[in-house]
Amino acid sequence: MLEWKSQEKAITQEEEGACKREIKAIQKELAALQQPIKQAGLPVLLVFEGWSASGKGSIISKVISELDPRGYQVWSYADPTDEEGRRPLLWPFWRDLPPRGEMAVLDRSWYSRALTRLEEDQAAASGLVESINTFERQLGDDGYLILKFFLNISRREQKRRLEKLSDHGATAWRVTDRDWRRNREYAARAEVTELLLQATNPVHAPWHVVQNEDKTRGTLEVLRRVRDALRAALEDGAPRPLPPEQVPWPLRAMPRLKDVDLSPSTTEEAYRAELKRERKKLQKLHSRLYREKVPVVLGFEGWDASGKGGAIRRLSWALDPRGFDVVPIAAPTPEELSRPYLWRFWRQLPKDGHVVLFDRTWYGRVMVERVEGLTPEARWSMAYDEINEFERELSRWGAVVLKFWLQIDQDTQLRRFEDRQSTPEKQYKITEEDWRNRKKWPQYELAVDEMLQKTSTEYAPWILVEGNDKKYARLKVLRTVRKALERRLDG
Amino acid sequence: MLEWKSQEKAITQEEEGACKREIKAIQKELAALQQPIKQAGLPVLLVFEGWSASGKGSIISKVISELDPRGYQVWSYADPTDEEGRRPLLWPFWRDLPPRGEMAVLDRSWYSRALTRLEEDQAAASGLVESINTFERQLGDDGYLILKFFLNISRREQKRRLEKLSDHGATAWRVTDRDWRRNREYAARAEVTELLLQATNPVHAPWHVVQNEDKTRGTLEVLRRVRDALRAALEDGAPRPLPPEQVPWPLRAMPRLKDVDLSPSTTEEAYRAELKRERKKLQKLHSRLYREKVPVVLGFEGWDASGKGGAIRRLSWALDPRGFDVVPIAAPTPEELSRPYLWRFWRQLPKDGHVVLFDRTWYGRVMVERVEGLTPEARWSMAYDEINEFERELSRWGAVVLKFWLQIDQDTQLRRFEDRQSTPEKQYKITEEDWRNRKKWPQYELAVDEMLQKTSTEYAPWILVEGNDKKYARLKVLRTVRKALERRLDG
Repeated sequence: MLEWKSQEKAITQEEEGACKREIKAIQKELAALQQPIKQAGLPVLLVFEGWSASGKGSIISKVISELDPRGYQVWSYADPTDEEGRRPLLWPFWRDLPPRGEMAVLDRSWYSRALTRLEEDQAAASGLVESINTFERQLGDDGYLILKFFLNISRREQKRRLEKLSDHGATAWRVTDRDWRRNREYAARAEVTELLLQATNPVHAPWHVVQNEDKTRGTLEVLRRVRDALRAALEDGAPRPLPPEQVPWPLRAMPRLKDVDLSPSTTEEAYRAELKRERKKLQKLHSRLYREKVPVVLGFEGWDASGKGGAIRRLSWALDPRGFDVVPIAAPTPEELSRPYLWRFWRQLPKDGHVVLFDRTWYGRVMVERVEGLTPEARWSMAYDEINEFERELSRWGAVVLKFWLQIDQDTQLRRFEDRQSTPEKQYKITEEDWRNRKKWPQYELAVDEMLQKTSTEYAPWILVEGNDKKYARLKVLRTVRKALERRLDG
Repeated sequence: MLEWKSQEKAITQEEEGACKREIKAIQKELAALQQPIKQAGLPVLLVFEGWSASGKGSIISKVISELDPRGYQVWSYADPTDEEGRRPLLWPFWRDLPPRGEMAVLDRSWYSRALTRLEEDQAAASGLVESINTFERQLGDDGYLILKFFLNISRREQKRRLEKLSDHGATAWRVTDRDWRRNREYAARAEVTELLLQATNPVHAPWHVVQNEDKTRGTLEVLRRVRDALRAALEDGAPRPLPPEQVPWPLRAMPRLKDVDLSPSTTEEAYRAELKRERKKLQKLHSRLYREKVPVVLGFEGWDASGKGGAIRRLSWALDPRGFDVVPIAAPTPEELSRPYLWRFWRQLPKDGHVVLFDRTWYGRVMVERVEGLTPEARWSMAYDEINEFERELSRWGAVVLKFWLQIDQDTQLRRFEDRQSTPEKQYKITEEDWRNRKKWPQYELAVDEMLQKTSTEYAPWILVEGNDKKYARLKVLRTVRKALERRLDG
């Protein structure tokens, strides 16, 4: 697939003139395409990878030179910052995703970072490839157009350019020891790069290896390909990925909601004593998590009035406020709606060593969005896989992931609703919507049952919490979290 | 003002029980206050500073324990991350400002960072105090309630707590060499801290020094003060700052728009030659900026169709796309509207060594918001000072700040509007709004004239660009930027 050795003839002056004229013409075409891209709501990612000194910067300049800055953004990804280093590999790229109708131009990307990681640890290869392919497939599913360029120059040409940069006072600083090392190790790096590119070359996010020994020819080729791909996407829609391979998720068996025995309860005395014990243990564990840089992601779902808030509060009392955040999930903002569904959850991931408690979660997709008809079936039915993939990514990063479903029966909910309505300081907690949701109990139960069957994995299990007795429920949450952390830290 | 030596009697068991009961009661009161805070749209900042081991974490836990997580966020500020280190001191705190109706609880703040900086450079003191007072006054002007707590313990008590933490395997890692050093240098640090606190103690953002030798008493005092301040703010509004002292801004004389001679022009030939020369020079300067970590902030304003986009594009062609961003400013989003006016511009500041070009700027406040009546006079008339302060902050940080006003006459605008309307690929650039704005030319001219008189400072000057001839205008922009960078880099 890749030609690592340049076989080009030198460019003639005449040819160069013709190339330059065509470049100018395409630049204007690209500018004219921005309006239709905006109107079609097409999100575009242009990824530039390549050898050091292969000319990424100057080709990017040519791509953007006539564009309206309101429609694109250039992102430069050097080595990870400390913020980025403490999050999953793909976190910065999720964070910076363009909204629909806009374009992101990436100067280096997840590929550079993956290659750096591979230099350190060859064994990480299959995990990296899987993470990347999943990421690009999810974006493709969401209508993103992804074009990936690898700018290729020969080892000799790279050496020549590095020498030239080194010779000039104004540019010498740009050439680092790493660049020279990589030039020496060109062959080995080419091999690894080629393997990575071949393993990540699906039809909806193809690689274009562009020979950039001659920069005019290289620039023209990139511009042509960008223009053609944009035109094609505007006419036919972005190329669609194939459905994900049916990986057998490592699912845990889950009971149906109606089969859950809601009788467990606890006495006030036992509750107080155990609460105290669990808090002490959790405090110690939290400090170990911090030191050992283990991230923890906890999700809370459940019927309205099932006691999510109370359980979250009891848990948070046991944690150092500097090391956790509670993230309440409400209806998405316009900013969130204009990007893939999981974007806002990616953005909220904790740093390693920190704990995030999600008060409602990404499972809204297959519950409220499904039941209320906010999202077409074609989209929400894909979410089981997307979510399993998301949680696998978290787990691969090293996070402890637990999801709690707080279960109550309809009588208990009614009693709690009535109590809220008659207690002034609780009144804000109950709305018309709660009553509306209650009427749809059977539809929600169906959706929740399906969700529990399809997304309780070994690495991110659902825990069903018997919630008719609030105290019992809180203790079960604390105990479950504590045990999971112990397993992780001691196991 | 501060009592650095504890003179407390030990707490009796009876007293402790009473304190704890009151703490619980206030926690519930705080939770009940969240709804009125939301409804009143009151934004609240609770700042916790204090000696190491003075108990910030556990007091913060007590403050938030009964709160609904949808209404607050806890922010922890340890040493600056690399992202933060490359931006102005106050940048992370602007970035994390809560929206109206919500509360931010800060575990350390700009004060810790200022103290660290003072340790390195005593001479920075007056600048730091001015930056901080300006920041808090601007927030106060905008209705923010700011409460600042300094948790105080004696040197002996601190030593005792550090020893206790060190003795336990689970907590020993939390005690660093720096903590011990600071305990040894307690007296000197107390003196510097006291000076800083005294210099930053205005009525709308007062310091509360809380004796926390006994944690139960300390916690109770904090909770009482938070509750009382919240209640008072809900009844009377947040305490208002005094108007800023009338600092004589170092203003440059500016001509009136009507007196600008718009005849300058250039030939195609001279334009091409100079464009090429300027681009080369700018390229080299950009690389020096990067190495010497100088940030550059350029703002572009001007009449519709005055050629802002073209000038920005010519400038960007001379810059490395990895080192600059063009930030287009449109109408504010709801997220932006719920925070102080300058928030969104603070968020967009470049890293040091980088260049940001704002396509329209923070001056919208005193132009479009003024002329269109979007903002009451009481607010926009304050903006001249706020903006001068903002730009002084940028300059103090080390940024080169330039603002361009592209001036054309009404005939030229009309010609360009008509040209846009008759050229298909330019049609998107012209809207009904442009025609509406044109009718208000005299009102805008009045506003622009006042803005130019009041905000062209030595450290952030306005440059009037004669724009009837586009080529002349582009060259003037390039030349002005180049010269300013040369002056800065060559001293």
